[in-house]
Amino acid sequence: MSVPVLNIGICGFGTVGQGVWQHLSANRARLEARLGVRLHLARAAVRDLGRARDVRLPRRLLTTDPLAIARDPAIHIVCELMGGTTVARQVTLTALRLGKVVVSANKALICEHGAEIMATARRHGGHFFFEASVAGGIPIIKALREGLVANRFPRIYGILNGTCNYILTRMREQGAPYAEVLAEAKRLGYAEADESLDVDGWDTAHKAAVLAWLAHGVWVRTDQMVVEGISRLTPADLRNAATLGYGIKLLAVITRDFRREELSVRVHPTLLPAGDVIANVNGVFNAISVTGDVVGTTLYSGRGAGRDATASAVISDLADAAALLRHGKGAHLLGEDAVAPARCRLAPPERILSRYYVRLTVRDEPGVLARVAATMARHRVSIATVIQGPSERPRAASLVLTTHQSDERALARTLRRLRALAAVLEDPVLLRIGDFAP
Amino acid sequence: MSVPVLNIGICGFGTVGQGVWQHLSANRARLEARLGVRLHLARAAVRDLGRARDVRLPRRLLTTDPLAIARDPAIHIVCELMGGTTVARQVTLTALRLGKVVVSANKALICEHGAEIMATARRHGGHFFFEASVAGGIPIIKALREGLVANRFPRIYGILNGTCNYILTRMREQGAPYAEVLAEAKRLGYAEADESLDVDGWDTAHKAAVLAWLAHGVWVRTDQMVVEGISRLTPADLRNAATLGYGIKLLAVITRDFRREELSVRVHPTLLPAGDVIANVNGVFNAISVTGDVVGTTLYSGRGAGRDATASAVISDLADAAALLRHGKGAHLLGEDAVAPARCRLAPPERILSRYYVRLTVRDEPGVLARVAATMARHRVSIATVIQGPSERPRAASLVLTTHQSDERALARTLRRLRALAAVLEDPVLLRIGDFAP
Repeated sequence: MSVPVLNIGICGFGTVGQGVWQHLSANRARLEARLGVRLHLARAAVRDLGRARDVRLPRRLLTTDPLAIARDPAIHIVCELMGGTTVARQVTLTALRLGKVVVSANKALICEHGAEIMATARRHGGHFFFEASVAGGIPIIKALREGLVANRFPRIYGILNGTCNYILTRMREQGAPYAEVLAEAKRLGYAEADESLDVDGWDTAHKAAVLAWLAHGVWVRTDQMVVEGISRLTPADLRNAATLGYGIKLLAVITRDFRREELSVRVHPTLLPAGDVIANVNGVFNAISVTGDVVGTTLYSGRGAGRDATASAVISDLADAAALLRHGKGAHLLGEDAVAPARCRLAPPERILSRYYVRLTVRDEPGVLARVAATMARHRVSIATVIQGPSERPRAASLVLTTHQSDERALARTLRRLRALAAVLEDPVLLRIGDFAP
Repeated sequence: MSVPVLNIGICGFGTVGQGVWQHLSANRARLEARLGVRLHLARAAVRDLGRARDVRLPRRLLTTDPLAIARDPAIHIVCELMGGTTVARQVTLTALRLGKVVVSANKALICEHGAEIMATARRHGGHFFFEASVAGGIPIIKALREGLVANRFPRIYGILNGTCNYILTRMREQGAPYAEVLAEAKRLGYAEADESLDVDGWDTAHKAAVLAWLAHGVWVRTDQMVVEGISRLTPADLRNAATLGYGIKLLAVITRDFRREELSVRVHPTLLPAGDVIANVNGVFNAISVTGDVVGTTLYSGRGAGRDATASAVISDLADAAALLRHGKGAHLLGEDAVAPARCRLAPPERILSRYYVRLTVRDEPGVLARVAATMARHRVSIATVIQGPSERPRAASLVLTTHQSDERALARTLRRLRALAAVLEDPVLLRIGDFAP
């Protein structure tokens, strides 16, 4: 009996691409027995033919033209592991128009062009798999789409960026300032030379957009989200949070109010109660809490990035692709057209509720707390706790306030007024307090 | 265009069966749109036709004969939610022989008759889905089989029984004795009238057998495992563990040494470092840590039992079944024949290594510690720490020893000798210390 051969082309042969090639080669016999196909690594597109790589391929398998792989009629599955949103988009759309399967780890591409990609796949009978785009090796896409198919999702939140979690973990453990830990993370290869995509929250926002689409069938643009990063946090914030019984994590938070049919997607550093399991997920690990209306709260954690974790997710997509090409379409397994139609709108700021942590650097003089408190009261933001302490700035004090429940609109107004006070010396630091206990 | 109808029969219409019916009815439109089929709840088998139920069905849909549902040519999918291993086995095999899909939550049945069930499914073209059998609503079966398909699994461990985790959590929080917390758990419906299946570790062992088969393709019988329960633990053990920096959880531990090709499956209360995320999973929640050779360590947690969490898992299997029946077989999605062939044997006790916690109730007289220490030294079990304290028993002391790494065989011999000492007044309590940090 002849076993069908699936030809795989890899576009982008950097760390992840080489990891996929290596692990797939090492496990090929076992995977092929399981899937009933031969998995043939047919071609790889690289930027520089001459560059030395850990995984050496015969010269004839290499090309510098990723579009040639997308167009190659012999290739059944295209792994897009280049990154970027220009050539990667062309490669993806070209392959989908030819009815191929595209496996992608590219969250920025999906976030920006997801609607176009899914529509192209549907129109031309192609398929788009993207388990590796969110939370690395954690099979969260499959869990949301298949394992939890019985559920609607009032809340999903989690740590989706290992670089930020590493920095926050080290800042807490060492009491070291942000800039010092960031430099360390760069030395260790945990942060990119240009760190802004990670530390300003954009990478997390891209992933949040993918999860929000999966869970709610709506593409939310990053400019429609609150996106705040970690670069203004200090070791004092982490100490203050610990004093109050919290850890600080950069979270994506996706909530949906099913009564009003309002969706909110946001990314911000968040105080999580010390007993929340996600508050205890440290280092480069990611973690996602998914609350379903049937199953209750489930949690997923693991390495969110890196060669091997990402390769694990890409290979699981290759296995799903093989099952699809060998045995026919499993509808909800694929889901280009299987996601709930969008029926909900974005929640306005006044309906995004939270408690807040506000750190002010103020003049160290009498009456300042009274003026700050009066400003907050005027906007009906009620103060829950106050920690006053020294500031690193001379003749200044640090004033840390937590609030009772308020909303994004009231807080935005309050912050504008606080900034205008002469006694407030620096832009206030605003953090959300997440009370997500199941 | 006509949409195919899938007829579903539910055998066993207790808490879980009614939950499946209710949630499926509530979400039918959404699921049907997604799957491209009509899901028709056609029949339910009950024990007592006259009994009042939360979910009321028309009398014509009810039968007292589950085999009639298994045999009914109009039924495509049989949900076996009766429990037990006699009629449930007949129903399962009958439906599979007719080429139907069986969805099961019955870990005891799978553990005892899994090999026969899978062989019958394969022979007759039937399919057996069992996401609800382990860890309730957590999609761990799908994660192991599909999401982590690139991996081999050197270690899987976790909390698989919510009753035991609830009891241990309350014992720690309240300092209350086992019997008192067990009685409370029964009152709250978290423990069965006959608690032994849960507290003696057998339910956990059934689930461990299912996971071991999925991960390693080997059916391990419970009489081939170390299976120890929680009924001898005291609040003092939880306090001692906390003093040493640990929590205590009843764990299933499945390890495979790929060099020697040896597998070990065991169930026992385990000291986990306080920083291990699983040590912080409390109450009725389950949690599973899965270490793959490619992905590293990933973690899954959620409600391990109960009507709604189990219904979520059953419905995800129904969705997979619908995709299968509608669109053809997705090979590794099903996996009756897709699991790695068994090539490994069970590890002998001398190669199951751990550190240990031993609590002895001894005569409160001089020289006892010396005799105990000498006995342990004779078997090359090296003592790491000693906590001596009062015992609840008059004229007795409690002696808590932790060891450096040793093995099951050495510990079994040592315990036999310790039991024989006149100064040792009760059967020693032996706990394993799990150092599973990723």
